[in-house]
Amino acid sequence: MKLVIRSSEEQMSEVAAQILMSTMYQDKRVNLSITAGASPKGVYEIVTKIIKENPQDFQNVHYYNFDNMAMEGTSDGLTMEDLRKQYFSPALVPDDNIHILKVESREEIMNDICQSGGLEMMLIGLGSDGHFCGNMPGVTRFDKECYTIPFREKYQDDPWVKSVYKDSPLPEFGVTMGAAALMKARRVVMIVNGKNKAEAVKQFMTSEVDVNFPSSVLKMHPNFTVVLDAEAASLL
Amino acid sequence: MKLVIRSSEEQMSEVAAQILMSTMYQDKRVNLSITAGASPKGVYEIVTKIIKENPQDFQNVHYYNFDNMAMEGTSDGLTMEDLRKQYFSPALVPDDNIHILKVESREEIMNDICQSGGLEMMLIGLGSDGHFCGNMPGVTRFDKECYTIPFREKYQDDPWVKSVYKDSPLPEFGVTMGAAALMKARRVVMIVNGKNKAEAVKQFMTSEVDVNFPSSVLKMHPNFTVVLDAEAASLL
Amino acid sequence: MKLVIRSSEEQMSEVAAQILMSTMYQDKRVNLSITAGASPKGVYEIVTKIIKENPQDFQNVHYYNFDNMAMEGTSDGLTMEDLRKQYFSPALVPDDNIHILKVESREEIMNDICQSGGLEMMLIGLGSDGHFCGNMPGVTRFDKECYTIPFREKYQDDPWVKSVYKDSPLPEFGVTMGAAALMKARRVVMIVNGKNKAEAVKQFMTSEVDVNFPSSVLKMHPNFTVVLDAEAASLL
Amino acid sequence: MKLVIRSSEEQMSEVAAQILMSTMYQDKRVNLSITAGASPKGVYEIVTKIIKENPQDFQNVHYYNFDNMAMEGTSDGLTMEDLRKQYFSPALVPDDNIHILKVESREEIMNDICQSGGLEMMLIGLGSDGHFCGNMPGVTRFDKECYTIPFREKYQDDPWVKSVYKDSPLPEFGVTMGAAALMKARRVVMIVNGKNKAEAVKQFMTSEVDVNFPSSVLKMHPNFTVVLDAEAASLL
Repeated sequence: MKLVIRSSEEQMSEVAAQILMSTMYQDKRVNLSITAGASPKGVYEIVTKIIKENPQDFQNVHYYNFDNMAMEGTSDGLTMEDLRKQYFSPALVPDDNIHILKVESREEIMNDICQSGGLEMMLIGLGSDGHFCGNMPGVTRFDKECYTIPFREKYQDDPWVKSVYKDSPLPEFGVTMGAAALMKARRVVMIVNGKNKAEAVKQFMTSEVDVNFPSSVLKMHPNFTVVLDAEAASLL
Repeated sequence: MKLVIRSSEEQMSEVAAQILMSTMYQDKRVNLSITAGASPKGVYEIVTKIIKENPQDFQNVHYYNFDNMAMEGTSDGLTMEDLRKQYFSPALVPDDNIHILKVESREEIMNDICQSGGLEMMLIGLGSDGHFCGNMPGVTRFDKECYTIPFREKYQDDPWVKSVYKDSPLPEFGVTMGAAALMKARRVVMIVNGKNKAEAVKQFMTSEVDVNFPSSVLKMHPNFTVVLDAEAASLL
Repeated sequence: MKLVIRSSEEQMSEVAAQILMSTMYQDKRVNLSITAGASPKGVYEIVTKIIKENPQDFQNVHYYNFDNMAMEGTSDGLTMEDLRKQYFSPALVPDDNIHILKVESREEIMNDICQSGGLEMMLIGLGSDGHFCGNMPGVTRFDKECYTIPFREKYQDDPWVKSVYKDSPLPEFGVTMGAAALMKARRVVMIVNGKNKAEAVKQFMTSEVDVNFPSSVLKMHPNFTVVLDAEAASLL
Repeated sequence: MKLVIRSSEEQMSEVAAQILMSTMYQDKRVNLSITAGASPKGVYEIVTKIIKENPQDFQNVHYYNFDNMAMEGTSDGLTMEDLRKQYFSPALVPDDNIHILKVESREEIMNDICQSGGLEMMLIGLGSDGHFCGNMPGVTRFDKECYTIPFREKYQDDPWVKSVYKDSPLPEFGVTMGAAALMKARRVVMIVNGKNKAEAVKQFMTSEVDVNFPSSVLKMHPNFTVVLDAEAASLL
């Protein structure tokens, strides 16, 4: 694991953007899997601007979301809807380069990744409870490449989920790539920022590999870069 | 994980020998870590004959043992002594290409691997208790690249250890590479043969990633080939 | 370049078979491009037997011929017809795993290789005139990944071509992958055997990179293994 | 080859800096070979600032110059002296991470690269005459990893060389890595900016692989990114 600590969220975002862009500037098909949520906001501001202004340079880049949950009012699902807003729409990524993982398409999508050269890079965040992608404490299986998770049962009381789903019903299952898929990605980058993640970062750094703190498994990835801002690193 | 089952130990050995030899025939420094013990007997008969007859082709190949335990009467330690008998001596490998991991040299040796391009391939076996290298149930830490294990405490009643050490005292500590080091090896091959390993193989295949069945973690390795003979695979 | 010299054609074949088999035993889609002709006879006897007896192990292996010439009486073309006889038929390779490069399908096939992870390995021979694949002196462009060659004009007097085509008309054009495609293959293996190739081998080893001795360019490949029998190496 | 064209030298520099930084942020020893001269000025301003402010992140990065010429008044030689001014001094790179290629140390340095995992990346420029590193028209051998060049004979009338050496005598020989070494680098990035390079860029893009326009050979590199500013690309 390569640990990089920067003084500000802006500098953290710059490091992650450098790795993302560098990965794209290759003469090959590049399959990426990138995170939704709040952490990558600064990264995507840098990256989407470049892609929008130079679309001819990124025809080789394909995107696969690494988790998803169905949601009323969108056929994309929760994660994809967020990725569209933050990344695909501002960057003007063509639909042909976007491959949507859903509960029902999971076998097809995972096979598509295998048949198209595998994932070149994943950009992920860290949950306060130690989750990565949809690998939550209590439901995680490290040996799975992709599996369904009991979303409704586990998340009906989660404040963030409630704020997103509001009055819509939660789907029974969600889907996520697992640790076995991340281990096959040729590079994994995790970004974490903010004081409210400092405790999780501390636990991530000190925990043994433990299914109850799922991201702990990533410390074994052979090409793994962790980028923190000073606040997230404040308890190290 | 790529699973290959062959009808005989001889054919199992042939598969592993093909992967070993192929790895050596490259125009670069090749760092290997290979297993001692009974499983690789057939593999090493094939491989050492080729190396002995064509020494000029293998000057680029360097060896690092992945575990070791001190033993009276040998400065090499238990694992290295066995490797010398089975491999280095019959293959006439020059001393300059052999790098000996011991309890006291572990930091130096692991740093040497890092500074010389990393491990290209590891060939390992499977213990009946699920151990790989010296990663035994009860003492294993997946997140370690190399660590000491309480050998005397854990193995003083082990029949095989008793048969080897006889009246010699067991050292308090041994040393082993851990899962984090194996994950960095560019390829890992595990060979298992014989009926007495069938139960362990079954557990290996079905177990979740579990520190109490240590080899279960290897199922996450991105370039992992498991080669079984029919007897070892008989309970699958 | 890694140079391996073995005393007999049989031992040369064994080395190449080891590398081929090792490449196939991976947990990923493996795209191969392999040579037709006389040199790989021994290699294919070893390899096709293993594949025929263990078809379940090789579903991940896909084949792409690297050159081809149309021929009356076969829709496959000259190279593919030979590969069927020597390899695909005895090994019982399913049609879905065979991808046929022809003059008219060349763009589609090269794009298919790009979109499916690239070539993992190529096995090639060496022509007495220094050609590799269909890259012949007088028509070779090193910077091309795939291009057509003026087959009829260049080969109408070639004794081997005459013996194959007999009274059938030669097609105006053939097709071949070029040096730029070989450079992208993650490993290239060249096998050469027999006294009648000794002069070509000598020139290959000593020549500068020269478009008039096309195989000379391969000496720059970053992961290139050349396997010779003693006769082919006799002038070194 | 991946071609990236940006509107300004500043944007060109940003792309190259992203790739350089991304390469450094890995959990392994990273061997780099970077160019001296005017083209990388903007790149090095970005990069050296980050390295100076975060020295703990770059202890894994080692530098090897790819060419050199002896010069009176400096034991470093011409290229290294320029690299010190532009990069190593402002970035505060420790001496232990700088490996100086000279005519007399060339075997030792090239062996050191081999024994330490090879070059991860090279950053190069393009000469108006098509040269890369010290591979000049008239003296280039594509099949060499490292060789001496007759510097005095070829460059005594070169205006830039004259302006640098002034009244100092030119050394008879210089040293350069050759195309065979670049082909082994896992990534090569070439940056070119300014109107006065537009003609060279055009020739680079359209030329066959030709020893008289040496950089033409790089079009065969399997992971090659060319970054141009608009002026350098103005004749494409």
